[in-house]
Amino acid sequence: MRIPKHIAVIPDGNRRWAENTGLKKHQGYTHGLDPGLLFLKLCQRYGVKELTYYGFTTDNCKRPKVQVNAFSEACVQAVKIIENEGVSLLVVGNTESELFPKELLPYTTRTNQDTDFIRVNMLVNYGWEWDLGHMHTSSNNRKNIYSQIKSHDISRIDLVVRLGGRNRLSGLLPIQSVYADFFSSNIMWPDFKEENFVSALNWYNSQDVTLGG
Amino acid sequence: MRIPKHIAVIPDGNRRWAENTGLKKHQGYTHGLDPGLLFLKLCQRYGVKELTYYGFTTDNCKRPKVQVNAFSEACVQAVKIIENEGVSLLVVGNTESELFPKELLPYTTRTNQDTDFIRVNMLVNYGWEWDLGHMHTSSNNRKNIYSQIKSHDISRIDLVVRLGGRNRLSGLLPIQSVYADFFSSNIMWPDFKEENFVSALNWYNSQDVTLGG
Repeated sequence: MRIPKHIAVIPDGNRRWAENTGLKKHQGYTHGLDPGLLFLKLCQRYGVKELTYYGFTTDNCKRPKVQVNAFSEACVQAVKIIENEGVSLLVVGNTESELFPKELLPYTTRTNQDTDFIRVNMLVNYGWEWDLGHMHTSSNNRKNIYSQIKSHDISRIDLVVRLGGRNRLSGLLPIQSVYADFFSSNIMWPDFKEENFVSALNWYNSQDVTLGG
Repeated sequence: MRIPKHIAVIPDGNRRWAENTGLKKHQGYTHGLDPGLLFLKLCQRYGVKELTYYGFTTDNCKRPKVQVNAFSEACVQAVKIIENEGVSLLVVGNTESELFPKELLPYTTRTNQDTDFIRVNMLVNYGWEWDLGHMHTSSNNRKNIYSQIKSHDISRIDLVVRLGGRNRLSGLLPIQSVYADFFSSNIMWPDFKEENFVSALNWYNSQDVTLGG
């Protein structure tokens, strides 16, 4: 079976799940922590080398403050959970904004760099315009372009897995996503289970790899 | 019904269609011309304001020469057909390469600029690395970033329609695609019919618009 080297996950649907469960929208995010840990363990078990979580974006921060506080706190908790799971961890996002949680500043340098641990990237207060906001490219050379984006330590994505039924990137890493295969599931993120992960891998295995060729 | 302002179409599946029909792979491309004209007429009828065709890419040019010649020639023919249909037409791609068809050089300046005609963009010898290859951005300002890409005259995409069953961008306009909804159809491009267009519009109408928020 062909296993993607790098999976990015868009953990969407927390607010809809909360409403469906009789909770307030912002109460959905903490219910996304267990699926986040499960997703990591499945990546480790199946031999995925790199995992990127779409934590929250600068666009998301236009939502009501109670929601912003809730998903920001969930990302802090997620990092605290993940760091103990044998990973090489990096938090990527705009640290110059007050919306970047200060507790995560120490993680903006990659941990465990010289290990064989799975590389885990958590996007926190990420914006595509922040990522591309200070580029000076001088040729069509792809390595040159990669070197100029702020997320340059995150590699090309093979598979995007999006929960919550939408089929769009919503600003996720535009350079790393150019050739990514995109798996969309109608399951809401708090309901994510191993079988959904296996469905994504089986679907990916049925695709060809052309890198645009 | 909510109609997308800007649709990009990825007309994939010509080669598979040809093989299924008993033709050689490269013979599929000319069978994509009629669907291309139909797609334009449907956009005009439904009030879409801008249409982008994913003609061919620098990545595609790694294929056998007989195929490269065939899809390049099909793009030239497509432009000749489309230009008479009441459109404001622009061809976008790397003209400095010998793989750019010389017949299309006159179309790299937009035609009928001050009309209410639908804006039609044809990507020809396009590469994402070419598009982003000479950027000098100085802030996170989106207009500044747009102004620096070579495809700056192509606006944000609302809906990507991909024929041929894949669910990926394959390098299509990474900046314009950041918030695009993505509709994938298993129909091969030469078999594209009005009902597939209507399916795409109905699906788009069922999505919400958040622009990442």
